[in-house]
Amino acid sequence: MQLLKERILSEGQILGDDVLKVDMFLNHQIDVALLDEMGKEFYRLFENRGINKIVTIESSGIAIACMAAKYFQVPVVFAKKGKSRNIGDDLYISSVYSFTRLDSYLITVSKKYLSGKDNLLIIDDFLANGHALSGIMDIANQAGAHIEGIGIAIEKAFQGGGDRLRKKGLDIQSLAVIQSIDNGKITFADDQTEKI
Amino acid sequence: MQLLKERILSEGQILGDDVLKVDMFLNHQIDVALLDEMGKEFYRLFENRGINKIVTIESSGIAIACMAAKYFQVPVVFAKKGKSRNIGDDLYISSVYSFTRLDSYLITVSKKYLSGKDNLLIIDDFLANGHALSGIMDIANQAGAHIEGIGIAIEKAFQGGGDRLRKKGLDIQSLAVIQSIDNGKITFADDQTEKI
Repeated sequence: MQLLKERILSEGQILGDDVLKVDMFLNHQIDVALLDEMGKEFYRLFENRGINKIVTIESSGIAIACMAAKYFQVPVVFAKKGKSRNIGDDLYISSVYSFTRLDSYLITVSKKYLSGKDNLLIIDDFLANGHALSGIMDIANQAGAHIEGIGIAIEKAFQGGGDRLRKKGLDIQSLAVIQSIDNGKITFADDQTEKI
Repeated sequence: MQLLKERILSEGQILGDDVLKVDMFLNHQIDVALLDEMGKEFYRLFENRGINKIVTIESSGIAIACMAAKYFQVPVVFAKKGKSRNIGDDLYISSVYSFTRLDSYLITVSKKYLSGKDNLLIIDDFLANGHALSGIMDIANQAGAHIEGIGIAIEKAFQGGGDRLRKKGLDIQSLAVIQSIDNGKITFADDQTEKI
């Protein structure tokens, strides 16, 4: 998605050889008009696939998921991070290892909001090593839900998570795929999304 | 806002005499169509007020803030919760006491995204004792930003935060104002929002 790539190039902050900060429009300040275009693009990529629910993870996935959900006309469910005071039989729980924090955290979803009847689109802001995504997929599997597709805003292909998960047969569509970050220069992979 | 009140009555879960859970449509599963109507209503209440930015707090304020921002055509900035690995001169920081957790937590906003030029609408999902709101207001004040208005989805008037803050001259508009929760029965206060 050309619009997103341009914003990454003009406003993204590169830290070292692997960290890209997009606080200016995605993760702290949110450019809602841009996210609306991203939501529309996810709809173009996954419409007519019978998706009945969008699942994401707090916090930075919520805005993108909601903008997409408006086009799909389906609800969003977001996995909550951190220990719940309410751990019991009524929650699906998974553990996510974070390279950024060098620690694991729990994610939870109430059993009320996911079931074997669901045909899910999972949306998240970043895909790097794929740990967060694997946690959401684990929860979807616990619920017996079908994962119809995965929509990612920014994939850091050089961290390998996307390829590893695609080999399992998952349909992952990323709006901007970064092949490498080298000496402050971002190189995008070709992608299949519309040039908008 | 009639639509929100009806959803609270039909789907809200009451715990004890003061807790209302709206996980079904607002805080865990998100009914994006409802939130879009809420965003439209915030726009009706605060349009022509020169608002240039909407500020909220992660996680459950983000979806409502984004839906409203679409109508205002302004960016959203969300305060991040918890200790940052990045505390320094570049962050506004405030502390919020949580009655639910019986503990305090930090909220932070990058100095890049708030300044004395900003005319803010603060949006949040709940207003009870007003501690979270006071934290965001503290950060807005540190930035020298003007708080033009405050939009709340659900105000629990019996916990007093709204009245205390209105006495300071703040324009707080709540889409559903709960006067009391008594023996499982919710009583709403009259409100000034449109009956939709």
